[in-house]
Amino acid sequence: MTESIYSTYPPKLSETQEQFLVSTIKDWTIQHGLTVRPPATFVSQDAVSKGVLATNAPVTLFPSPFPKACFEEARAVQKVYNELYARITSDEKWLGEVIEELIDVDDFVAGLWKVHQAVSKEGYVQDLSVGLFRSDYMVHTLGSETASLKQVEFNTISSSFGGLSCRVAALHTELLQSPPGHSLSYPGHPLLDGRVPPENTAVETLSAGLAAAHEAYGPSKSSPALPLGILFVVQEGERNIFDQLALSTRLTQFHKIPVFRLVTSEILDRTSIAEANPSRPLIYTPPHAQGTPFEITTVYLRSFYAPTDYKTDRDWSARLQLERSAAIKCPTVLNQLSGCKKIQQVLADPNKPDYLARFVPTAESEGTQEKLRKTFAPQYDLSPSGRGRELALNPETAARHVLKPQREGGGNNVYKEAIPEFLKSIPESDWKGYVLMELIQPPSEASNVVLRSDGEVVSGNVVGELGIFGTILWKSNGEILHNEEGGWLMRTKGKESNEGGVAAGFSSLDSIILY
Amino acid sequence: MTESIYSTYPPKLSETQEQFLVSTIKDWTIQHGLTVRPPATFVSQDAVSKGVLATNAPVTLFPSPFPKACFEEARAVQKVYNELYARITSDEKWLGEVIEELIDVDDFVAGLWKVHQAVSKEGYVQDLSVGLFRSDYMVHTLGSETASLKQVEFNTISSSFGGLSCRVAALHTELLQSPPGHSLSYPGHPLLDGRVPPENTAVETLSAGLAAAHEAYGPSKSSPALPLGILFVVQEGERNIFDQLALSTRLTQFHKIPVFRLVTSEILDRTSIAEANPSRPLIYTPPHAQGTPFEITTVYLRSFYAPTDYKTDRDWSARLQLERSAAIKCPTVLNQLSGCKKIQQVLADPNKPDYLARFVPTAESEGTQEKLRKTFAPQYDLSPSGRGRELALNPETAARHVLKPQREGGGNNVYKEAIPEFLKSIPESDWKGYVLMELIQPPSEASNVVLRSDGEVVSGNVVGELGIFGTILWKSNGEILHNEEGGWLMRTKGKESNEGGVAAGFSSLDSIILY
Repeated sequence: MTESIYSTYPPKLSETQEQFLVSTIKDWTIQHGLTVRPPATFVSQDAVSKGVLATNAPVTLFPSPFPKACFEEARAVQKVYNELYARITSDEKWLGEVIEELIDVDDFVAGLWKVHQAVSKEGYVQDLSVGLFRSDYMVHTLGSETASLKQVEFNTISSSFGGLSCRVAALHTELLQSPPGHSLSYPGHPLLDGRVPPENTAVETLSAGLAAAHEAYGPSKSSPALPLGILFVVQEGERNIFDQLALSTRLTQFHKIPVFRLVTSEILDRTSIAEANPSRPLIYTPPHAQGTPFEITTVYLRSFYAPTDYKTDRDWSARLQLERSAAIKCPTVLNQLSGCKKIQQVLADPNKPDYLARFVPTAESEGTQEKLRKTFAPQYDLSPSGRGRELALNPETAARHVLKPQREGGGNNVYKEAIPEFLKSIPESDWKGYVLMELIQPPSEASNVVLRSDGEVVSGNVVGELGIFGTILWKSNGEILHNEEGGWLMRTKGKESNEGGVAAGFSSLDSIILY
Repeated sequence: MTESIYSTYPPKLSETQEQFLVSTIKDWTIQHGLTVRPPATFVSQDAVSKGVLATNAPVTLFPSPFPKACFEEARAVQKVYNELYARITSDEKWLGEVIEELIDVDDFVAGLWKVHQAVSKEGYVQDLSVGLFRSDYMVHTLGSETASLKQVEFNTISSSFGGLSCRVAALHTELLQSPPGHSLSYPGHPLLDGRVPPENTAVETLSAGLAAAHEAYGPSKSSPALPLGILFVVQEGERNIFDQLALSTRLTQFHKIPVFRLVTSEILDRTSIAEANPSRPLIYTPPHAQGTPFEITTVYLRSFYAPTDYKTDRDWSARLQLERSAAIKCPTVLNQLSGCKKIQQVLADPNKPDYLARFVPTAESEGTQEKLRKTFAPQYDLSPSGRGRELALNPETAARHVLKPQREGGGNNVYKEAIPEFLKSIPESDWKGYVLMELIQPPSEASNVVLRSDGEVVSGNVVGELGIFGTILWKSNGEILHNEEGGWLMRTKGKESNEGGVAAGFSSLDSIILY
């Protein structure tokens, strides 16, 4: 079924049908804020610098088919995954042992660990952490076997596209049902007949997670008491701002919580910690209302996730300032580190002890651990005499694997037969910077048509990646105050592109039709 | 009050306050579709041609103060105005007499009249007309007198900006109340304290007018019966498309009515009238779904209002095709003609018979006529030995007047002392192409700050124009099936610019704070 469904999907478009869909989507996206700021490659740097232009986010013309059982399985394990990563984050000793192995090969991890150590030495003043997570999966098919779900990545920081993803679902839903009573936007196809994408509550769920943290922070720790608010820490010149604004709008309009945006480079200018106050509340003074400082309950990071976000020592100082404050961090440094590929590998390594049993309590039946484990693709490190090294160096077994650099921004993945040669070309001491992962085999005939941000329409074979959003608020003693699953993201990439985020260009935002 | 209110309004912005407001508005407008397509002067023609870029509609940073009594007065007379223009339209004899005076000097009016005559000869097959009207006013102040309301124009075709106007009201409302519980976006000012713009239901009202027409059309007149829908006739390359989409989205999502957009140049390609069917239903075949023709119940014109919309005879044929069809027109040719400046002048000419009494039935108390008349600024034609000619040629009296060309696109207004000289420079036979209007004196110190579509921020003295939206559906026998008032538009123009639509560049969309 999974392979055969693509033999007729998506239905072929005539020229006028494509024209209609494309022009409708160009207008719909702008009307509904399914937008990004245009890159300077498309319009002049001068026009971009005015900060007023926008263009559609890259989107597929059609929703992509996705096996219903896999979608439900992914949703069913999300709250367990939330808890797993909360527990890993709280187990500083175990997490530290894994992370310390990386410090030699990964300056970025080393820098983050140093921030944690500094705060740890001084003593943390905030016992709560909040996570806005996204677990990413691909559908794995082997021959005519039933499709299964395999986890690609678990994101613990800056899990993006919740805002825009909801709008893509709304776009496809509207197209599928338009004009009212007729459904003529798409050519007829059995898969589209009467179906619409499942409800997407990503904005509600993610915002509710931040609102729960804001609530749990309690009263102002300043004296006199200050008004409270949430701080979004963002990158300079963010093109994906409308995705973020969907969350802040929900927080202000529905939850009635003040939200401020602050670029990383201004953290030290606009925030302060009253050193005389042992509770270390984080004070933010809006530049436009300097007479009304706010106390920040929750810092939501949409920056500081990549090495490029730390250009100077000042950026590290800024991160430290946030970390040592009383604000609840989304995420803490430790929670960010728990999202390392290395952690995923250690959990999924068939030759390692059963760490899952350590973190997923037996009180939750044995079946729960098994459900998580089913979503793992086998992963290995390349330690001497380990199974991973053996699989990677043998061209025959390497052909079923991908070699991923542990380090963010640490270069491209290496695929299949190229792995043995690549490893031999670098010093053996660098091998611990890589993780070997069994290749996930997505449906090979999947295809779709994409409207890019520059207005070009491209079509061809694609690979889809489903993300499930979840949020969790927990105390360092393990007590969980809020644990929710809700909302999803479908990203569809051209087969040529093995890597790259959606905003970066080639991949696109999509929605799903369950079958 | 009206003058003095501006001595402290709008409050001065510091550099960081302006920066915050401007960047917030740049983001908000894109997020909420308060947008236009950018002009080719701002981005390259090549980028524009991709059809994906958008920028903010020009908007004021602050809502403008507006006298509450004037706002209520304007709303109170709208349904009477709707009825007045419906009655004028239905009085073909009276309307024809006024229009025929213009035919010599105005090819455009002549062309429209010819369309009416052709259909009249053949016989109209549609007894219903629908109007989406907008009555535009300025606040008139003289010295320290109380402000009064004076009508600038009554629009019977393509009354625009209902869609975007609602969003400007929402923008200013959100700014006035943000962050939640604090209101720090603007510097403090008594006029802004606790106030927000009045509710703006323009989208609901205008869409309900079209929906009422669709409903009143009745069952399909084709055999076999065809599905029914509304047709938006639009200009090629419309930059103000998102204003229009607000209405079609409301019609499809709330009223569940199919809506199609068609550029004028494609009317003859995509629509047809079954000549064998004496009811002359208008059939529209969507290019993307050619197997499913629709019967058009209602033609909504967002084109065909200006001479430039009729480039060739083919355009006139297209207008004729719509006019002679069974579709309900918004508006008919006659209804469009009723919106001529000349009609307004004839109604408002103190030296003419009391036409108002003819059209506003005495059953509605004498007070009603008086309420309308109060909104008129005196207007005159320039007929020999008439009062208008006398006022226009005397420099002293000319100084209180503006000379307006009757013809759309017929040149610029001529102001005050320049009037006598201008009239002497043109042949006397052309004078009947002009209307002399007593100048409305808006508050002279009104000022505001505008964010233009190219990102520039300009501030200075402004003139505001308030439009009130209304819709009416009536039978040619005078029976009224639907008559509603609802929604408003505030347009604010830099003092330098005496003319020009909002999308054209210098003027901007605004909202109001009642005082």
